[in-house]
Amino acid sequence: MEKHLKVSEAQQVIIDAVSAMSVERVALAQSLGRVLAEDVCANRDQPPYDVSAMDGYALRSADVANAPVTLEIIEDIKAGDMPSKTVQAGQCARIMTGAPVPQGADAVLRVEDTQSMLPNIVQINCSVKQGNDIRYRGESMRDGEVVLSAGTEIVPGVVGMLAMVKAATLNVYRQPRVAILSTGDELEGLNDAFDANKIPDANSYALMAQVQSLGIQPVLLGIARDEPEELRRYLQMGLQYDVLLVSGGTSVGVHDYVRPMLEALGVQMKFWRVAMKPGHPMAFGSTDTTFVFGLPGNPVSSMVCFEQFVLPALRRMMGCSRLHRRTLSARLTHDVKHKHTRTEFVRVTLHQEDDDYAVTSTGAQGSGILPSMAKADGLMIVPASSQGLMAGEQVRVQLLDGTEFQEVADFRE
Amino acid sequence: MEKHLKVSEAQQVIIDAVSAMSVERVALAQSLGRVLAEDVCANRDQPPYDVSAMDGYALRSADVANAPVTLEIIEDIKAGDMPSKTVQAGQCARIMTGAPVPQGADAVLRVEDTQSMLPNIVQINCSVKQGNDIRYRGESMRDGEVVLSAGTEIVPGVVGMLAMVKAATLNVYRQPRVAILSTGDELEGLNDAFDANKIPDANSYALMAQVQSLGIQPVLLGIARDEPEELRRYLQMGLQYDVLLVSGGTSVGVHDYVRPMLEALGVQMKFWRVAMKPGHPMAFGSTDTTFVFGLPGNPVSSMVCFEQFVLPALRRMMGCSRLHRRTLSARLTHDVKHKHTRTEFVRVTLHQEDDDYAVTSTGAQGSGILPSMAKADGLMIVPASSQGLMAGEQVRVQLLDGTEFQEVADFRE
Repeated sequence: MEKHLKVSEAQQVIIDAVSAMSVERVALAQSLGRVLAEDVCANRDQPPYDVSAMDGYALRSADVANAPVTLEIIEDIKAGDMPSKTVQAGQCARIMTGAPVPQGADAVLRVEDTQSMLPNIVQINCSVKQGNDIRYRGESMRDGEVVLSAGTEIVPGVVGMLAMVKAATLNVYRQPRVAILSTGDELEGLNDAFDANKIPDANSYALMAQVQSLGIQPVLLGIARDEPEELRRYLQMGLQYDVLLVSGGTSVGVHDYVRPMLEALGVQMKFWRVAMKPGHPMAFGSTDTTFVFGLPGNPVSSMVCFEQFVLPALRRMMGCSRLHRRTLSARLTHDVKHKHTRTEFVRVTLHQEDDDYAVTSTGAQGSGILPSMAKADGLMIVPASSQGLMAGEQVRVQLLDGTEFQEVADFRE
Repeated sequence: MEKHLKVSEAQQVIIDAVSAMSVERVALAQSLGRVLAEDVCANRDQPPYDVSAMDGYALRSADVANAPVTLEIIEDIKAGDMPSKTVQAGQCARIMTGAPVPQGADAVLRVEDTQSMLPNIVQINCSVKQGNDIRYRGESMRDGEVVLSAGTEIVPGVVGMLAMVKAATLNVYRQPRVAILSTGDELEGLNDAFDANKIPDANSYALMAQVQSLGIQPVLLGIARDEPEELRRYLQMGLQYDVLLVSGGTSVGVHDYVRPMLEALGVQMKFWRVAMKPGHPMAFGSTDTTFVFGLPGNPVSSMVCFEQFVLPALRRMMGCSRLHRRTLSARLTHDVKHKHTRTEFVRVTLHQEDDDYAVTSTGAQGSGILPSMAKADGLMIVPASSQGLMAGEQVRVQLLDGTEFQEVADFRE
């Protein structure tokens, strides 16, 4: 019997096999979620001069040491203006957030701490330190310095930085082109007529959504029947892509054509079995141009395998360094049996309790029970060596899509 | 002086004001991240009959009570086939995962626990309980039962369920149409020529990316100069959308035209000030058809305000019930001063340590320092009443985009 790899061993085989895709240039508006393939430098000092951090008054801190005092307003400076006068003793300039601090002034006092008197006179209600509410030239970035390194994942703050250095287009790693194929005579396509004896093809669409959630639009090849020529034609189509996900038909049963057909088409298989539950059978191989994942026919197993194996591969191909699902420690609310020697992934829901999280199984964990995956917030990892888990234990949970958000804001004010 | 709302009070004003958008019908392939606006029912029993959960042999459990025994193979049943024979004493059928269990058989034994003898004889190596590896008719879903309720967020597992009930199209809440406007003479557009005295418009693009990360493609209106007629024209354009985000120009300085212009255009302002840092000034109002957010001119402040106020509003409009960023408890690695009475959001990075997380400030927290946001994993919440936080304290952190993933798989096998 062939060796069953541990989940972590299988992950390592995959991660060692794949690498970042080639580079392409995209517009800033299309860059979210992609990964920078070049260092990006500042193209100016930012701010370009000493600017006010507040709406208020630019003044000489020495003048207001004994506040309250009144000062003469010599000028209005708004963002985009350049000051024309120098602030002398007893004077100040009305200044807006982002506007240049005029010569002579060494601090800004926000308008809330002042009182308007005559049109050109203001009362200053408190003293300020030198430099108060001034953002100095180059404080955010200095002309020419690398502000973003190759390998940076483009999150919204990075998009802001890219706009700040006016990177209207940028080099990013190409996204892998992903094809999805379901196999099996028993499957009924989404748009096929209803047949009581068939099983709707859920796998293609669940996998589609998992790929979409990584920002990649996959191609659905459809359903290949258990017929050698048809299967060959579909697999050949799939091997035109960077990644091919085949679900069903990679088991050891007599009717499974997928494995020998993949090998006949030149796919070198790296492994066929992983000691996990759900998730049987799970295979991985490649040609020179395509990585092939053989996923289980059961939608839950297929989705769990995607999370463990396909997701890190796709993220690595996209140039990411964070390849795996976020995990957190949580309190288990009930006992969980574990009577085998495979790593188990139990679908759980997440509940906030005080400062911590608690997790509870979604119920029956049969690999065919798709609702368990639809309502899961995460996958609780039960180690292969575990003899079972007990209520109250701290367990490790992989967070799934949808858990980026929660119902309560969780403020203490 | 006008009242400063607490962050949680301002959030409540906004959440009470907005509600789910109208309903539209979308294709399954376009549904990820949307929210169901209808209950969805199963359209058949699933599985449609008792099926095998494994590749193996369908047999009579009583026959193998004293395993090892040999059985006669009377038929091959693959997924998609219907069995034609009844399994009698001493007999079995070779069966594939998902294939119907034949009459007479009451259990399945997986192929790994058997040994092939002659073509029509198999040795059964162990006994099995009745029902072993059989998935019973209707175990996943029963014809007519509600399998997904209105209000369900469409994550990949839900897409799988929708495919399982062959929901090729479905009713979801419409996404709000969002317009983004920057204001200020000092701003230089992304495609404008370089001007050393200007500041690139980072806000429009950072906000664009924040909206995109919620799955919504916003419209960028551009930059309105500090000139009443131009501003009026831009704001009127913005009021054609469901949500208008205006950054800059909503403060109390003399050059701020935005507030009076919004009021002149019929926007009823609900609040103008929130006691938070960064995040000044932050305003919210509405017309009959548009919600208007006045965001600070500083990109960091603007982004932090988006996270606290715009994000929950947009998610509620999309029909979501999880409106807020995921928070977690983490250990603070250093002291943090807090000398004011506003709720503070400190940009932090996240580090895994054993079973817990630690957080560390990204460094200087000036509201103009955009790199602090670009590299942040989260926002640490410092309560308004805090007198400062100490190294080692457990603090609450809102997770930002990019933290769904981590570098290590974090397995214990």
